[in-house]
Amino acid sequence: MKLHAKNVLIVYAHQSAASFNAAVKKAAEEALKAQGCDVVVSDLYAMKFKATATEDDVTGESNPEHFVMGRTMTACRQKKLKDADLVIFQFPMYWFTMPAIMKGWIDRVLTKGLPSALRNPTVEGIFKNKKAMLSFTTSSHETMFSASGINGDINVTLWPIQNGILHFCGFQVLPPQIFWAPAYVPQEARASMLETWTGRLQGLLNEAPFFLHLVIV
Amino acid sequence: MKLHAKNVLIVYAHQSAASFNAAVKKAAEEALKAQGCDVVVSDLYAMKFKATATEDDVTGESNPEHFVMGRTMTACRQKKLKDADLVIFQFPMYWFTMPAIMKGWIDRVLTKGLPSALRNPTVEGIFKNKKAMLSFTTSSHETMFSASGINGDINVTLWPIQNGILHFCGFQVLPPQIFWAPAYVPQEARASMLETWTGRLQGLLNEAPFFLHLVIV
Repeated sequence: MKLHAKNVLIVYAHQSAASFNAAVKKAAEEALKAQGCDVVVSDLYAMKFKATATEDDVTGESNPEHFVMGRTMTACRQKKLKDADLVIFQFPMYWFTMPAIMKGWIDRVLTKGLPSALRNPTVEGIFKNKKAMLSFTTSSHETMFSASGINGDINVTLWPIQNGILHFCGFQVLPPQIFWAPAYVPQEARASMLETWTGRLQGLLNEAPFFLHLVIV
Repeated sequence: MKLHAKNVLIVYAHQSAASFNAAVKKAAEEALKAQGCDVVVSDLYAMKFKATATEDDVTGESNPEHFVMGRTMTACRQKKLKDADLVIFQFPMYWFTMPAIMKGWIDRVLTKGLPSALRNPTVEGIFKNKKAMLSFTTSSHETMFSASGINGDINVTLWPIQNGILHFCGFQVLPPQIFWAPAYVPQEARASMLETWTGRLQGLLNEAPFFLHLVIV
């Protein structure tokens, strides 16, 4: 019955259930479940996810004088991630990137040992059939993130995450879903953003990854 | 006696006192104190700095159903930052940016209200005479961060921090101090990196900010 169903993991970071981010997350859950997907949400604030990598994370013999990030737990142990065909990161952009609690998920789940594990033939391919995408709200208006805007092209700002983290780990990266300044538009405009998102979700599982390329001049 | 002394804040994120990051931080403290500076270190792991922005941070009336980041405490209240002429961020690069605990400092100290506060004529200029710089270690070799390397030019990776956070807040941004892959070089090479850093520190207070400019093609 669920032969073609996909497993989706939504890594979600917002403090409030009444937030626009919560509504966006709920829309994704509903639309993907309606397509037969298994959807799992890691609600980081609700889980009180530990953002900080500390000696407690080290497996095996520990030495507080020489904390080595690479010796912390590895992503392979996170079943939710291992099972996922698609990972959606849902967050409000704080200071041009994800909130600290989500960076903590990246730091602690995708450990330094992971990329080399991925190059090891015995585990290679853990991520190669997985897709990942960023879905986020901004407080800036879109014009501020144009090539001539104060912040420059949004793709430059997203480069360390989309290329550095996701593509580097082997994920196929889907184009980001950006909700521009929802706090500063009328309710109807927010509703329209959600409709656009719901529309995209209908075909999301069949979307092709996009090519990331940047040159500095 | 200390008419020309500068106040320096080092925001420092490493778990271990025996780390190379600790040695780099110590070199900065010593060299700057020798020049008559007042040096204050915010040792984030030692302070168990709270990385996650939560309702507890909100000043005034709080509503957990509508967490609004802009209503959290503002940087103006952090005397260490207010007093600083130079802020050095010292960290090991985790996943192409700062560790989560330092992102938490950014999220919680530089609150959303701050940039608009800075545009308010009554407080304008809080940061305009301050300099800031990144000083960090990598696990990647330098060639991986060349324009043709797997990670692209390091300046693209640093753009969201140097332009997005520091320059946006009004800081004058000094060129980054990058320690390439110290864990993978011989002890003599690490000692040489520290010597180069100590040399730079002699003239650091007189360095001119650099111009950040990126174009995507």
